[in-house]
Amino acid sequence: MSTTAAYESLCNHARETAKLASIMGLLEWDERTKMPTAAGEYRAEQISFLAGEIHKRQTTPQIAGWLDELVGSPLAADSHSVEGTVIRQLKRQYDKKTKLPQALVEELSRTSVLGQQMWVEARKADDFAKFQPLLEKTIELKRQEAAAIGYKVTPYDALLDDYEPGATTAEVAAALGGLRDALTPLVEQIVGSSRKPDSELLKRDFPVDAQEAFGKAASAAIGFDFNAGRLDTTDHPFCAGAGPHDQRITTRYNINDFSDAFFSTLHEAGHGLYEQGLPADQFGLPTGEACSLGIHESQSRMWENQVGRSRAFWEHFLPKGQQQFAALKGVSLDQLYGAINEVRPSLIRVDADEVTYNLHVLIRFELERALIENDLQAKDLPAAWNEKYQKYLGITPPNFADGVLQDVHWSAGLFGYFPTYSLGNLYAGQFYAAATKELGDLPAAFRKGEFQPLLAWLRKNIHAHGQRFSAGELALNVTGQPLSHGPWIEQMRAKYGELYGL
Amino acid sequence: MSTTAAYESLCNHARETAKLASIMGLLEWDERTKMPTAAGEYRAEQISFLAGEIHKRQTTPQIAGWLDELVGSPLAADSHSVEGTVIRQLKRQYDKKTKLPQALVEELSRTSVLGQQMWVEARKADDFAKFQPLLEKTIELKRQEAAAIGYKVTPYDALLDDYEPGATTAEVAAALGGLRDALTPLVEQIVGSSRKPDSELLKRDFPVDAQEAFGKAASAAIGFDFNAGRLDTTDHPFCAGAGPHDQRITTRYNINDFSDAFFSTLHEAGHGLYEQGLPADQFGLPTGEACSLGIHESQSRMWENQVGRSRAFWEHFLPKGQQQFAALKGVSLDQLYGAINEVRPSLIRVDADEVTYNLHVLIRFELERALIENDLQAKDLPAAWNEKYQKYLGITPPNFADGVLQDVHWSAGLFGYFPTYSLGNLYAGQFYAAATKELGDLPAAFRKGEFQPLLAWLRKNIHAHGQRFSAGELALNVTGQPLSHGPWIEQMRAKYGELYGL
Repeated sequence: MSTTAAYESLCNHARETAKLASIMGLLEWDERTKMPTAAGEYRAEQISFLAGEIHKRQTTPQIAGWLDELVGSPLAADSHSVEGTVIRQLKRQYDKKTKLPQALVEELSRTSVLGQQMWVEARKADDFAKFQPLLEKTIELKRQEAAAIGYKVTPYDALLDDYEPGATTAEVAAALGGLRDALTPLVEQIVGSSRKPDSELLKRDFPVDAQEAFGKAASAAIGFDFNAGRLDTTDHPFCAGAGPHDQRITTRYNINDFSDAFFSTLHEAGHGLYEQGLPADQFGLPTGEACSLGIHESQSRMWENQVGRSRAFWEHFLPKGQQQFAALKGVSLDQLYGAINEVRPSLIRVDADEVTYNLHVLIRFELERALIENDLQAKDLPAAWNEKYQKYLGITPPNFADGVLQDVHWSAGLFGYFPTYSLGNLYAGQFYAAATKELGDLPAAFRKGEFQPLLAWLRKNIHAHGQRFSAGELALNVTGQPLSHGPWIEQMRAKYGELYGL
Repeated sequence: MSTTAAYESLCNHARETAKLASIMGLLEWDERTKMPTAAGEYRAEQISFLAGEIHKRQTTPQIAGWLDELVGSPLAADSHSVEGTVIRQLKRQYDKKTKLPQALVEELSRTSVLGQQMWVEARKADDFAKFQPLLEKTIELKRQEAAAIGYKVTPYDALLDDYEPGATTAEVAAALGGLRDALTPLVEQIVGSSRKPDSELLKRDFPVDAQEAFGKAASAAIGFDFNAGRLDTTDHPFCAGAGPHDQRITTRYNINDFSDAFFSTLHEAGHGLYEQGLPADQFGLPTGEACSLGIHESQSRMWENQVGRSRAFWEHFLPKGQQQFAALKGVSLDQLYGAINEVRPSLIRVDADEVTYNLHVLIRFELERALIENDLQAKDLPAAWNEKYQKYLGITPPNFADGVLQDVHWSAGLFGYFPTYSLGNLYAGQFYAAATKELGDLPAAFRKGEFQPLLAWLRKNIHAHGQRFSAGELALNVTGQPLSHGPWIEQMRAKYGELYGL
């Protein structure tokens, strides 16, 4: 077989697998938005069957045959070319998938299902001991997984790589450590400030239909294409893809909370914009797929925060909001801007403000790394959790449910996932600074409702590349800097310094 | 391999294939209700890929191996037992699928796609000649299909069998011929009557939200389980299944037409009730699948017509409708009952009233049979169409679009499908008469909003059997009569005799 023929076969195979994977996306979207309640049990069977078919396709020895022809061939010579990227990334995927023994894959999958069920029960009963045995088992299995895949320095490297390919624990720890050291004094200053923006005005009556219309209009204004996407209601907002022109974002509405739905809509629209900006003709190939979770999160967080929580954004949108909501009549731009940017150390990660959010993530990163590296035992986790919350955020959870049991991730075996939330914020900071440098005064555009310049910049510099570069390479190429907390912390100091008079 | 092991393998294989088929159901539902417009092209690829995977599974030689063990074994001895049914029907399906050469399958599929595209264009341009070449090709391919499958009397038998397994052209022609001879004089009497119920009152303002709530409430009242189903909006109403507890019915709303959405909702709910009544633990096996299109249509038509267009139904629902719709205030039961039962020969099948509907179907049956049997040439179809419309309905279409080009079926290769619409009406007539005989005064129950007795009877006598009996056997078992137009025409004579004072 010629390298050309092998390459074509490899690509066709990947594109066909992507058909099944995108169908999976639809099944999952439907499950969380539209599916009748009684259909849940069979839906799990459909999803598990499809996952098995996808796994079979991704581990078929045919792939090894094609890769044997291609790796080291001239086609793969430039690892950042389309062909080089496709070969490199599909090899990486194949190696990872085939290194895991089938028995371990099944045990991980079973333990994840049981773990999530037990987590729900334990959280309800506020009983960590109930969850502890399954957590121990999960940690042990994740260590086995890391051992099977292999790693240079720490088993956490192997797990992190699933979500942030190419990143190392050391580099993430350095970035987040620098972030922590710069962030904790800023939070202390803010908490100590006598200025207190008031978010109460966002708790008035905001009729759900109007919230939906407003969120949809704002998503469309920043560039989300509703001919190639939808907005629906769900319990835990997410963005799901069902094909190259089919991005489905979701949110949830609370009539007495404007922020929750609006900013989660912008956040998910940011994820959707990234997916809509990937090269559609490369769909199913690594060149048409998102770079990493950190880069994905950088897009959602930038539209949510750097854009959506800026004063300029609301110079444009407040008058429209006042037409839509009686509750916003008479509210000044300063009042609104303060309200959407209130900083207050709190217990729950998903409710945290822009500034303290990363401290929540940092705590989880430090704890899960210690668990995987055997420096912390599951039984000691609650105490370690509370100690870190006291240290970084100055508060101690009154119970397990709002403390160590608040997130689903560990119960589902998602170790190595948490830090990507903060990487997203740091990359967003870096990208936004670079875009500003190139495009000039972005807020001036936002004030006029013009978001196209920023989107076009993101399309060109980030979206268009798919997986041609790792997240770290992309940051270096686009911003001239490796992963760094500098630009983000600078943005926070400027914004909150002004807001809180620091 | 033991027969027990072969049977288990056969069943597991069928159940796994059903997971893919039910996923296909979800893809199709989504395409017609929720999918963003730009996603259509890729959706077609997803569907065609999945169809290929399903076809591969349904024609794998493994099935022949299992069937070799099973056919003629004691397990298959009673062809109406669960095992007997499963073996008989899966053999039938396998034989049919493997008899068709792959080249013909692909040619049929391609021609169906092109045919439908050309039909849309031809209909728009009101130009039959545009469509004629593809129609000719489709007819030729369908003849080849019939030849490959084999038949005793006429190639039409082989095609009909796809939709109404076990039915013969001769038996359908006899039933529909009898129906025609009894129906045409009744239509003439009605048309000649001086009594003219007025459907204008249904063209007032009926706000869409209220229509939806009312249709949903009525569907729930007749027994449709919304924990295992949904109601959504679409262009051409349908019912799609996405799993054993997941039936999705659809309708469309016109603010100035109460009947269209309401009766199509009841109709689709009738289809959904059948699917919800099939044994869920047999999902994926012939014992858990619908008997035939004719039987399916008997359920939808019974709930739409025998129940939904009865006076008793509206004795219960009119007061509720009057609370919901200002337009129904002051409307009497007699006025409403007349309005929903207005008979008026018309051009378009899908808009036809209960009485004349079967004449539309009959015309199509006679024409498509003649096309397949080579007694009619495609070029002569428009003239033959108009002649039959004049003869049976007393009207001549003014153009092709509202005449011979009005239905999608032939362009999609669906020859043998049309008669199942009328078979559904006849079976509905037979079943309703049998249920009345056993349960007594059904309208007395409807008047009180009690639909459970009829539904329970249908569950027990029809739904529970899946494919254990053919449609004809089922009718004989349940009503003591083979397929017959007698009960239906008797019901029409009684109902419309009273309404039109005949």
